[in-house]
Amino acid sequence: MKDSFLIKDEFFHYYQELVSDVMLPYQYAVLDDNAADADIPKSHSFENFRIAAGESKGEFSGWVFQDSDTAKWLEAAAYCLMRKPDPDLESKADAIISLVGRAQEKDGYLNTYFTVMCPDRKWQNLQECHELYCAGHMIEAGVAYYEATGKTKLLQIGKRLADLIDSIFGKGEGKRDGIPGHPEIELALVRLFRVTGEQKYLALAKYFLDFRGTDPDFFKKEALKRGWTLWNMNPEDTDYLQNTYPVREEKNAVGHAVRAVYLYTGMAMAAVETKDASLADACERMWNSIVNRRMYLTGGIGSSADGEAFTLDYDLPNDTAYCETCASIGLIFFANAMLDLQHNAKYADVLELALYNTVLAGIQRDGTHFFYTNPLEMDPMHAQKIPRFRHIYPRRPKWHGCACCPPNAARLLASLDRYAWHTEQNEKGRQIFYSDLFIQGEYHYNGAFSFVTKTGYPYDGMVEYEVQAAPGPFTLAVRCPFWSKNTPVNVNGKRKIPKMVNGYLLLEDLKARDCVQVTLDVSPHKVYANPKVYADAGKTAFMAGPLVYCFEDADNKDLNFLCVDKQGTPLVFDSRDSVLGQIRVLKIPGLRLTQSDALYSFAPPGWERCELTAIPYYTWCNRETGKMKVWMPEQ
Amino acid sequence: MKDSFLIKDEFFHYYQELVSDVMLPYQYAVLDDNAADADIPKSHSFENFRIAAGESKGEFSGWVFQDSDTAKWLEAAAYCLMRKPDPDLESKADAIISLVGRAQEKDGYLNTYFTVMCPDRKWQNLQECHELYCAGHMIEAGVAYYEATGKTKLLQIGKRLADLIDSIFGKGEGKRDGIPGHPEIELALVRLFRVTGEQKYLALAKYFLDFRGTDPDFFKKEALKRGWTLWNMNPEDTDYLQNTYPVREEKNAVGHAVRAVYLYTGMAMAAVETKDASLADACERMWNSIVNRRMYLTGGIGSSADGEAFTLDYDLPNDTAYCETCASIGLIFFANAMLDLQHNAKYADVLELALYNTVLAGIQRDGTHFFYTNPLEMDPMHAQKIPRFRHIYPRRPKWHGCACCPPNAARLLASLDRYAWHTEQNEKGRQIFYSDLFIQGEYHYNGAFSFVTKTGYPYDGMVEYEVQAAPGPFTLAVRCPFWSKNTPVNVNGKRKIPKMVNGYLLLEDLKARDCVQVTLDVSPHKVYANPKVYADAGKTAFMAGPLVYCFEDADNKDLNFLCVDKQGTPLVFDSRDSVLGQIRVLKIPGLRLTQSDALYSFAPPGWERCELTAIPYYTWCNRETGKMKVWMPEQ
Repeated sequence: MKDSFLIKDEFFHYYQELVSDVMLPYQYAVLDDNAADADIPKSHSFENFRIAAGESKGEFSGWVFQDSDTAKWLEAAAYCLMRKPDPDLESKADAIISLVGRAQEKDGYLNTYFTVMCPDRKWQNLQECHELYCAGHMIEAGVAYYEATGKTKLLQIGKRLADLIDSIFGKGEGKRDGIPGHPEIELALVRLFRVTGEQKYLALAKYFLDFRGTDPDFFKKEALKRGWTLWNMNPEDTDYLQNTYPVREEKNAVGHAVRAVYLYTGMAMAAVETKDASLADACERMWNSIVNRRMYLTGGIGSSADGEAFTLDYDLPNDTAYCETCASIGLIFFANAMLDLQHNAKYADVLELALYNTVLAGIQRDGTHFFYTNPLEMDPMHAQKIPRFRHIYPRRPKWHGCACCPPNAARLLASLDRYAWHTEQNEKGRQIFYSDLFIQGEYHYNGAFSFVTKTGYPYDGMVEYEVQAAPGPFTLAVRCPFWSKNTPVNVNGKRKIPKMVNGYLLLEDLKARDCVQVTLDVSPHKVYANPKVYADAGKTAFMAGPLVYCFEDADNKDLNFLCVDKQGTPLVFDSRDSVLGQIRVLKIPGLRLTQSDALYSFAPPGWERCELTAIPYYTWCNRETGKMKVWMPEQ
Repeated sequence: MKDSFLIKDEFFHYYQELVSDVMLPYQYAVLDDNAADADIPKSHSFENFRIAAGESKGEFSGWVFQDSDTAKWLEAAAYCLMRKPDPDLESKADAIISLVGRAQEKDGYLNTYFTVMCPDRKWQNLQECHELYCAGHMIEAGVAYYEATGKTKLLQIGKRLADLIDSIFGKGEGKRDGIPGHPEIELALVRLFRVTGEQKYLALAKYFLDFRGTDPDFFKKEALKRGWTLWNMNPEDTDYLQNTYPVREEKNAVGHAVRAVYLYTGMAMAAVETKDASLADACERMWNSIVNRRMYLTGGIGSSADGEAFTLDYDLPNDTAYCETCASIGLIFFANAMLDLQHNAKYADVLELALYNTVLAGIQRDGTHFFYTNPLEMDPMHAQKIPRFRHIYPRRPKWHGCACCPPNAARLLASLDRYAWHTEQNEKGRQIFYSDLFIQGEYHYNGAFSFVTKTGYPYDGMVEYEVQAAPGPFTLAVRCPFWSKNTPVNVNGKRKIPKMVNGYLLLEDLKARDCVQVTLDVSPHKVYANPKVYADAGKTAFMAGPLVYCFEDADNKDLNFLCVDKQGTPLVFDSRDSVLGQIRVLKIPGLRLTQSDALYSFAPPGWERCELTAIPYYTWCNRETGKMKVWMPEQ
């Protein structure tokens, strides 16, 4: 890698240590069926590899994509090893990699479900069986582990698997058409191409992207041909499967939200490598469809539990929201790929929203409980008790039967350094460094440039960049977030008014020892949804910097009776809590409604003034169980 | 019958003529698979009887409870014949009754599904197969047809079927325990007892009520014993099946809403006949559970599409509301039975709400299109297109695969005379006449008392009672609806301030030729929900008299951008429309929000003043397709 970023941030230090010290050991124990807590369902993910390797007896157990949990754990382990040496973790990872190698078949095939359960059914059910999805995750893990340790074993496993896939699917002689029901292989193949330089992997990624949507009946024909089904999914729901139109012709982000953003990430990464303008246009269209019409304020996506899917424009119900943690992680992947395609602060704005809000909310502060769904409103009296809230949890469970989210969050947080900075040379050969996330640390590029960033972000808006080394003039492009109303910039103590291009403050002609101070406006403010978002009609939400706030019963007795006072403005208070950590809470003038027991009345509810307390959404549900709301009625 | 009420009401004349002239002929054609419109799915209900009678070849088709459509049609026909002679209708009904008789087996068994499909499986699957439900409907039809025509053929069919059921179920020797998955038989048996005087039918009704809930595993054991299932319903969902607690111990209205109110109606009817105080208490508890915590403003009940069921207190979402037409019809049955149990205006208040709002909204003004579900908010862009709105129709369909609602609405509207008046003797032998619904017509009691009522209700609040004949002093008890803030009463032109007891204005010591004028306050007003109903937070609705109003796109361009002005008050305007008939619309000061295209903004939406138009909810969706809302944000 040409650049590196060493995170020394107070805010994210907590999470990065949590991943390496708590989440990875905990998840290892769960995947190894050795979790101390008997309540945790058996994952069986490692055991499936042992059975496939012929080293253990027993039956395959878990989902057909259970292998991907192991792959994501290995990838997260790789990023942790990149951050700091950990011989115990490395030996554990090496042992699992060795096991994975022994479970790989001679021809490169690797999927314990099929190896153990039904080797005669391989590659027949791309719609439901996720062989290509699991392959993609193992390839990603191999790339990451190679980058972290220089060890090639898992990379070779991934290459052999990719070579097998390449020998089966595509347009060449003896090959056949195919696309994954769950995209992931595409982005993984681009990563494999990037690390190996082998064009065939990029070509295979491009094939999967290009074939998609050219035959909307593909999965139906596949189902008819094989005559069996794994879990009775509808092969004709082409929107769910993102196979209605060729990817360049689709107008909206549709179907299963995680699959969608994994697909779009693959598209954007391929477009970067191939300079394919029509593919880049398609990415931009999908981006706009999500961000302008189908995304929650928290960066959550996928409003329907049914199909874990996008629905229609402006349909963003708060209480039944699905907002899978993985979908926001995928949105971050997509945003990051878009930043490589075209440097525009709007991508990083959304990347940041999804990261600081939905992804962090997906993890309990203790690192051992995880949300799968992330609603913007929750009532523990209703969660899991009323049919339409069946998917809503009143608290984060310790694990999930379908455990895609916990290791996915681990690998994202462990690799956060890859999202903070981006760089490119402009047409004049000038290096531009884009500061996309405001995280304290040291950034190095090519052994020549280095900066130290200092900040107490997201609670403090001041971000300082000290140029430590620079062989010549360069440009620092600091993202000016959409929420920062007023963003003064000082260079070496002097106020400067920089050019703003594509949402970045351009600080040009910097040199070693220069010091840039950018003060983002992280003061709190109200947010209103477009009236087309009928779920938010008459309601307001609060943000401060990138943080979306929410109200909990823990701070506000019975949320159903509370409104925000239209005239009031929020005030900020520092708070330190052993559970929530150092945060800033908002105190907001509010009204408490009073009402008789009548179900309906002719008089409006009476009210008395009160003070509401809002906490950052990412910290919710870490104290006692109670109602939570992001959007609050205002009157 | 001791009393009769001849309806001569402008408002209901339309609906009663619609039933006899349009709905019954139309439904006959549909049930006979002879509907002119090829789009209408084949009912096969009559044909099933022909096949069961051995007079036609072919397969049974339709739901396992398809017979009930025929039974409800016959019952509706009976009420029409009571209202006015119709030789054509009577001969059609006689022919169908004769066919039903030929389809009845020698031992009295009557259910075409089992006779045709699987005679060896009778009475094995009370949970799913609705044999007792269909029996109840045929018994009700027999009772009604006897009352209408004096003909006993269908009554005898019902009696033979009831005798067979009595020989199988109960506590006596050679009998076995059982309860219907779908209550209905209980109320039907009480009706059969009332018309025949045979105690055994009341005893059997009481048995079914008393056994319910005493063995929560009943349906599970039944399923294990028989080893087959019809449609894979869960036999352990005892709340859905109203079998968790004995009926006297249940605290809340739970489960499938139609089943619940049919059960509670049977309970109340049995309590009337048996003077069973604990059963009456249970009815009152169920009433309060529904009306105080689980009912929509429109008298709709059952907020969840999943299970067509009640959920929890105050969970009343407007857009995903189920509110089956049949459930509100059942609520009317329940209210009417409660009025017989204890004369309190609160029952009639709800009876009237359900009738004028949800039931009438279930029927298109043309009499040939019907809603199954009755949401309080609908967006045609979402209805049936987004998973959680799958059950919401953008327009009334011509028929339904499960066609319970259309003939149910027909039998209710054709028998409306049975709901308007109630009477009893007080402890001093004084006859009290309760005027519960304000419908113009002639009421006769026992050949001795008669009144003429005149009114333009519900749009005009003046109701006049002329005493035509009265052999001695009596009391007229006029319901004072909960919404009438000011209700002046004149007797023979002089202002009177009558006693108010249990919600009734008591006019005592009336005699022949007296004229009473009661002026109900039908002026429009805003309604607010209890803040616990979080779906209505910050919103207001409008009522005028018993009518709930709603907003449609047809009158108000794009409802999503509209709010009610908190300061404004509604004004009433007469409107005559060839489709909606003579109605009163409300003109309400409102605000139209203006907003950029942004999904989220830091500034509240701008607004400009505008005028909103609301129409009675019962008339919605009779013009062009568009959005509809009952509850509107207010600011």
